[in-house]
Amino acid sequence: FDGVELKNISVSTDELTLADRLDDITESAIKTAYNNIYNFHKLQQPSPEKLESNGITLWREYRAIENVGLYIPGGSAPLVSTLLMLAVPAKIAGCKRIVVATPPAKDGTIPNPILYAANLCGVTEIYKMGGAQAIAALAYGTATIKKVDKIFGPGNVYVTEAKQQVARDVNGAALDMPAGPSEVMVIADSSANPAFVAADLLAQAEHDPNAGIVLVALDSQFADNVQKELDEQIKHLSRVSIASKALEHGLVVLVNSLNEAVEVANRYAPEHLMLEVAAANEILKDIQNAGSVFIGHWASEALGDYASGTNHVIPTYGHARTYSAAGVSSFMKSISFQEVSHEGFLHIAPTVERLAELEGLDAHKASVVIRRGTK
Amino acid sequence: FDGVELKNISVSTDELTLADRLDDITESAIKTAYNNIYNFHKLQQPSPEKLESNGITLWREYRAIENVGLYIPGGSAPLVSTLLMLAVPAKIAGCKRIVVATPPAKDGTIPNPILYAANLCGVTEIYKMGGAQAIAALAYGTATIKKVDKIFGPGNVYVTEAKQQVARDVNGAALDMPAGPSEVMVIADSSANPAFVAADLLAQAEHDPNAGIVLVALDSQFADNVQKELDEQIKHLSRVSIASKALEHGLVVLVNSLNEAVEVANRYAPEHLMLEVAAANEILKDIQNAGSVFIGHWASEALGDYASGTNHVIPTYGHARTYSAAGVSSFMKSISFQEVSHEGFLHIAPTVERLAELEGLDAHKASVVIRRGTK
Repeated sequence: FDGVELKNISVSTDELTLADRLDDITESAIKTAYNNIYNFHKLQQPSPEKLESNGITLWREYRAIENVGLYIPGGSAPLVSTLLMLAVPAKIAGCKRIVVATPPAKDGTIPNPILYAANLCGVTEIYKMGGAQAIAALAYGTATIKKVDKIFGPGNVYVTEAKQQVARDVNGAALDMPAGPSEVMVIADSSANPAFVAADLLAQAEHDPNAGIVLVALDSQFADNVQKELDEQIKHLSRVSIASKALEHGLVVLVNSLNEAVEVANRYAPEHLMLEVAAANEILKDIQNAGSVFIGHWASEALGDYASGTNHVIPTYGHARTYSAAGVSSFMKSISFQEVSHEGFLHIAPTVERLAELEGLDAHKASVVIRRGTK
Repeated sequence: FDGVELKNISVSTDELTLADRLDDITESAIKTAYNNIYNFHKLQQPSPEKLESNGITLWREYRAIENVGLYIPGGSAPLVSTLLMLAVPAKIAGCKRIVVATPPAKDGTIPNPILYAANLCGVTEIYKMGGAQAIAALAYGTATIKKVDKIFGPGNVYVTEAKQQVARDVNGAALDMPAGPSEVMVIADSSANPAFVAADLLAQAEHDPNAGIVLVALDSQFADNVQKELDEQIKHLSRVSIASKALEHGLVVLVNSLNEAVEVANRYAPEHLMLEVAAANEILKDIQNAGSVFIGHWASEALGDYASGTNHVIPTYGHARTYSAAGVSSFMKSISFQEVSHEGFLHIAPTVERLAELEGLDAHKASVVIRRGTK
């Protein structure tokens, strides 16, 4: 499918070593992004809680998901940032096996920046494969690839559908979050720079003809100015045909107040919400539904997409109402524990017996009663 | 479908008030369970992290999911415990609307203990409805019911299928976790009491003919003794036909060591894992995949099912490899924030530009470049 014949789909140690040959500027950019992502995600390690009372101790412990698969789309460009956004939290979580699947170029290679980033993250198990077949290989395993427990990462419609299918199969693999086209909503008042706003909308529009592009403006003159900037700036983009398709179904929402703008954002639940308004800090507490919020005129979305340190795998399509961006906890699960002394048992036994009776569950009650008579 | 004609499916204030009429023992049992569940879950409130460096501030804030639906199955008995296990963390999370759906009895009423527990949790929006149609009403809304964002709770195969269908629909509602039959795995050594072990296996078996019942034993004589106890104890149960069907496909796994037993548990990833062994505390750190772990001879699973304070909505069917039990975080999501000063922007801009170039995303780069020339 990738138009290439491979002897071995596994990336060799030699190939990984070659990856050190990057120019200094690229190397430094990847390292800076890595460090910023690492530092913010390092703070996300969960702290277990413990409760002791009346002879019963309750607590939860977090464990890394043992085997995780990271799907990194290929195609036109090496998505180094997506690799960092997934491998860094997986590494911090402590996943035993971090497996990367990414389609090879026509010459059978994986771009050096991807291999360099994988090296940085300590990822050594990399397969040259893409598409729905890569998801199947990760979810079910093959003769050469051991199956994984959960699959992360973006992809085209085939990849997305495959992820959903294997997640519904108990013998498959869980998925990170439901997928949908990327979105940005910019709330802008008269303090905003129409050129900045237009550039931010275009940065989203170049991703996907189906991308969601929404400007929430407090006056129509400002919206017109943004439109003029869009018309001008789009001419200079290489991905102009994608961006213009996305803009065709873009929206301008005119509101009377910042509160109304927040109400629009909460109903839409955008993946990215940019607050290019003077009083941004006054409305933060009212934002209920959004994936990632960018505050102020200098917080271009691209900063968070690449390097500031927040995760760029964010719920889209309204799913921010119930889902969070990827993070360390996406690569972990908790286990509940309870330790019960004889005294603790005797103390709680009558409560458990009464509730089991109420629910008509005899055997539940019996499992308590049989312990009552024994020391 | 429930064989009853209702004038109003909404539980009235009068009905909720009547719910105070419970006998003292029942009232006290529900209150004790409520308090224990509340106290343990109260510790689960997430604490947001914040990172400031080089003019960029990153943090996450947690928000309650605004509208949640709790499905409480009806049928033979009032599942008070399930209501508590879901409504308590929803309340702690701060969900604005907590909606309960539960099928009415033939006389059109909801059992008093359910209403009493709902009162305790401050839940006042209760609908007398069950089955797939209740899930649809919650997910999509009706003329009288406002839609919810996420649906929690167990149910029969129709309810489970309905939850999955609405979760796949972007206009539907998210679900708590994939469902499967309930399971228990008991690891027992010679320190265990075969009568206790048998009682614990039966407590699981009475739930469902498809329940997973697994004994991991260190010697075959002990396993035989448990079998004898099962044969004897099952005779006295009201739900003997369900329990015996579950036992028909139950498993006994004989292992040579406690380490081997843990390996079996990690591969199976049981919903409930009981450690009826002398050296339980030595193996806790090795348990990687399990929903809820019960330690020692007095920690009957029924304690956790009802009243000790841990959650009883736990991943089944191997999903404990990637999912956690329900908790406060199940009723919340996080939002990422970043605030960027002009200095912060200038500091990170070259990194972002280089990475955008590398990924061939012009407009991303342009959204940074356009800000570079402006003060």
